[in-house]
Amino acid sequence: MSEEMSEEMSMDLYDAIARRRDTRAEFTGRPPADEVLERILGAAHRAPSVGMSQPWVFVTVRDPGTLAAFRDHVHAEREVFAAGLTGERAETFSRIKVEGIAESGLGVVVGYDPTTAGEQVLGRHAISDTGLYSVCLAIQNLWLAATAERIGVGWVSFYREEFLRDLVGLPEHVRPVAWLCVGEVAGLPDVPDLERLGWRGRSPLASVLHQERYRG
Amino acid sequence: MSEEMSEEMSMDLYDAIARRRDTRAEFTGRPPADEVLERILGAAHRAPSVGMSQPWVFVTVRDPGTLAAFRDHVHAEREVFAAGLTGERAETFSRIKVEGIAESGLGVVVGYDPTTAGEQVLGRHAISDTGLYSVCLAIQNLWLAATAERIGVGWVSFYREEFLRDLVGLPEHVRPVAWLCVGEVAGLPDVPDLERLGWRGRSPLASVLHQERYRG
Repeated sequence: MSEEMSEEMSMDLYDAIARRRDTRAEFTGRPPADEVLERILGAAHRAPSVGMSQPWVFVTVRDPGTLAAFRDHVHAEREVFAAGLTGERAETFSRIKVEGIAESGLGVVVGYDPTTAGEQVLGRHAISDTGLYSVCLAIQNLWLAATAERIGVGWVSFYREEFLRDLVGLPEHVRPVAWLCVGEVAGLPDVPDLERLGWRGRSPLASVLHQERYRG
Repeated sequence: MSEEMSEEMSMDLYDAIARRRDTRAEFTGRPPADEVLERILGAAHRAPSVGMSQPWVFVTVRDPGTLAAFRDHVHAEREVFAAGLTGERAETFSRIKVEGIAESGLGVVVGYDPTTAGEQVLGRHAISDTGLYSVCLAIQNLWLAATAERIGVGWVSFYREEFLRDLVGLPEHVRPVAWLCVGEVAGLPDVPDLERLGWRGRSPLASVLHQERYRG
């Protein structure tokens, strides 16, 4: 890494939102430099959290054996999903890459620890999932910061939570929320893979907007 | 609104992450201009989602009667939480404002609709909550875009999901995820309210970071 690369990268927020992609195929094989990873994780750690509980856990994984074991599990789960598809859906799915675990060179396992702020978490008494929501807000901060740093992120969700828990030794009270492939990329595509490959397209904003009351 | 205000506001991503606050007391009473709100919701709608399912729903609420009804419900739930506190916690909590529902002038109810992408959602077969996670990613996009637009957002979570569902007419299959107070602000404080008022402080990043495996 050159000296300049250790400076925080600047990107306009709306640009980061627009350029962010769920990365599968573009990883170069180089994980982010340590100082870049620290900025990305620092962005995650600045996310809002219910009652300021900061209930997230990050486990960085570089060990090739662990990466390979997770990739193999994900490939098996891919087959489980594929087995439920027929016709055009099966054919379209066959062209879609669902992970870049080994290629990225770095996995970031994100977990939810509901115990970080004691029993009385301000804002969690009526809705227990608010802690889990906070963890997701941190993931989006991480994802956008990575985009600003020209680092790709791919969220893998073809796995069983128990497998991932065992793989990185999360205790029973910490729930695995995500495996993120994080690494340098040659570039980010303009169009999401799932759109480009015909899986699904974008819906118009108006279709998810309602005024005063949900219109049935 | 002046002509210039209809232009998208620019802010560096890391600045937006750092300046974002959970707003309670700073609302001026003016909701965001229509075009600003559309950009903020557009940012939410550009979030990543599992299998590109885009499973979010937004209901904008301005009706004073609806705002007042929700505020009254939240005040009652505040009392439920307060009743479980004693000593210093009770005293500290008594100084904390938990909502700006009426003052903001606009509520955005965010819901999760698991049916937007049919039965076979790519990436959801093994972990059903991944759809819910997507909705939270959209909320963080919204929050950061609002920060760039100098608009405050306050996530209220002192409520019962069933109450909010009935209030805005969400059907049974749409789960309420958040009530966001969204409005113009006089400014955003440098320090989160909960930190400034002594409820909780920030933890160091190192305390939530693990390498290769979770250290017990």
